[in-house]
Amino acid sequence: MKIKMNEFDYIEKYFRPLTNKCALNLKNDAAIFKQKSSFDLIISTDTLSEGIHFFGHEDPADIAKKSLRVNLSDMAAMGAKPIFYNLSLSVPKVKAREFIPKFAKGLRDDQNIFDIKLIGGDLTSSLKYINITITIFGETYNGKSISRDGAKIGDCLYVSGVLGLSKIGLDNFNSKLKEFEEAKRKYLLPQPRVNLGVSLENIANSMIDISDGLIQDATHLAKNSKLTVELNLCKIPLPNIKQLDHELILNSALYGGDDYELLFSCNTLNESLVEELSIKMNLKLTKIGVFKEYKKEYLEFKNNNSKPKNSYLHF
Amino acid sequence: MKIKMNEFDYIEKYFRPLTNKCALNLKNDAAIFKQKSSFDLIISTDTLSEGIHFFGHEDPADIAKKSLRVNLSDMAAMGAKPIFYNLSLSVPKVKAREFIPKFAKGLRDDQNIFDIKLIGGDLTSSLKYINITITIFGETYNGKSISRDGAKIGDCLYVSGVLGLSKIGLDNFNSKLKEFEEAKRKYLLPQPRVNLGVSLENIANSMIDISDGLIQDATHLAKNSKLTVELNLCKIPLPNIKQLDHELILNSALYGGDDYELLFSCNTLNESLVEELSIKMNLKLTKIGVFKEYKKEYLEFKNNNSKPKNSYLHF
Repeated sequence: MKIKMNEFDYIEKYFRPLTNKCALNLKNDAAIFKQKSSFDLIISTDTLSEGIHFFGHEDPADIAKKSLRVNLSDMAAMGAKPIFYNLSLSVPKVKAREFIPKFAKGLRDDQNIFDIKLIGGDLTSSLKYINITITIFGETYNGKSISRDGAKIGDCLYVSGVLGLSKIGLDNFNSKLKEFEEAKRKYLLPQPRVNLGVSLENIANSMIDISDGLIQDATHLAKNSKLTVELNLCKIPLPNIKQLDHELILNSALYGGDDYELLFSCNTLNESLVEELSIKMNLKLTKIGVFKEYKKEYLEFKNNNSKPKNSYLHF
Repeated sequence: MKIKMNEFDYIEKYFRPLTNKCALNLKNDAAIFKQKSSFDLIISTDTLSEGIHFFGHEDPADIAKKSLRVNLSDMAAMGAKPIFYNLSLSVPKVKAREFIPKFAKGLRDDQNIFDIKLIGGDLTSSLKYINITITIFGETYNGKSISRDGAKIGDCLYVSGVLGLSKIGLDNFNSKLKEFEEAKRKYLLPQPRVNLGVSLENIANSMIDISDGLIQDATHLAKNSKLTVELNLCKIPLPNIKQLDHELILNSALYGGDDYELLFSCNTLNESLVEELSIKMNLKLTKIGVFKEYKKEYLEFKNNNSKPKNSYLHF
């Protein structure tokens, strides 16, 4: 027997169980958050559009997790502890019955992993494609968030993990080779560096998460700090995939998107703290560059004069 | 000469000028809001999908205003003063160049009217249709927001303005008759009752904005308050449009959406305060029902045994 559900039924059955008390059981026009004057509230939004940010045929649970994780990554990049999120989901009528329960299950699983709850949002139909917008909220002590413009001359540039995996996963999404499994998994389910972000509060002075490729995001840090960053291409941490040559892997790291690793600057005096953190968190943190006085370009390559090409742009 | 703009160019040219200082010039992964412990932050989200909530051929400035206004209406319904908003806009590549500048102009105009600023968001492409999600933020003193569940037995039910105009405007959108001008305008550009919402802080004990038709939204108030509301159909404030018979206008009021008038309950002792407010604001506030102990239905009609049919549902 098919039971026809309307949006209130979907909200009651699948989304209300995901909420915290701010959500007032999703029975009101808004959520209510009691402010605390010793904290800043950090607010960020990321949208995933079907056909642009995901294919549409993935498991809806994975789409849900990716939507949440790219937002969690924004909190990490600010050095903020994520506390709750708001979801707007637009789904074509014909897909709702199949999509929504699995999508909500994916949210529930990741809510448990990342200790975060839903506070509200909107559920509507759309004509043809799924659109997911999450606004995420995090907290730092007053003035303790990490911006993109704090790098100083002489600071080191560090990056977490390895770069390029997600782009390789996307490019080989239909491959059955087990050597691409990790890359495909990383493309589907990025690993936001939430704990690292919070731990860098007193260490990093500028930070960004790599969503548009190392070149573009390193340029953002340099440009906002009004400096030039000199990248050492030999130091970029790359995955080891024997089917692919080094040049292709390096290009995936430089220009591919969706890695969601953290890229941050810190004073050279903090290098030992970064090393300790790397050991404590069992996470590779690699020094890949240095900030210099701005001359002609925001980004230079050490021992290499090739000019960077463009990363992915929406328009 | 055509200049190809990417999303950063669009953000810099059209959206950064709309921001306040929380937005940090849209140069970071997130906005930063300094919390104040004597206030609650009220958070709400509404999405407009092309083909569902708007046709797509309207002036983009009007689409922008409607997107902002339906969210402002949610703040009004909570009795909250709107302070800023977050925008996620997904636009097909081929429409961006034409759509974005006009859309941003519409936001700017309404920001001035409603004294509200942009704090951040996301701009992405989409495959075919435009999707707009706004998360709006408002403030009340601690514990002073108005929920949907506070009505008591014997309380009056009031509504602002007249009902049904927006549905009539939608149904006659292609008519050239000047009698439909006001209705079409109301459909395109709802008038959120922001000042009324804030002024009802110590008068109303439950409130909702009418986005899904009077029947559905009055039922929400009754259901959340665990009472029955008795509507007096003779009292519903209706527009006067000579081309349409009374039955059709009444049905538009009862079942049509998008009116964005405020529907609220208050103690009978507050009736004189409501009357004073109506005069002071030069806005019709009409008593249309009364709350009674719950029996079999959440909603009853005075002197009328007909059962309400369903309002618009997304799924």
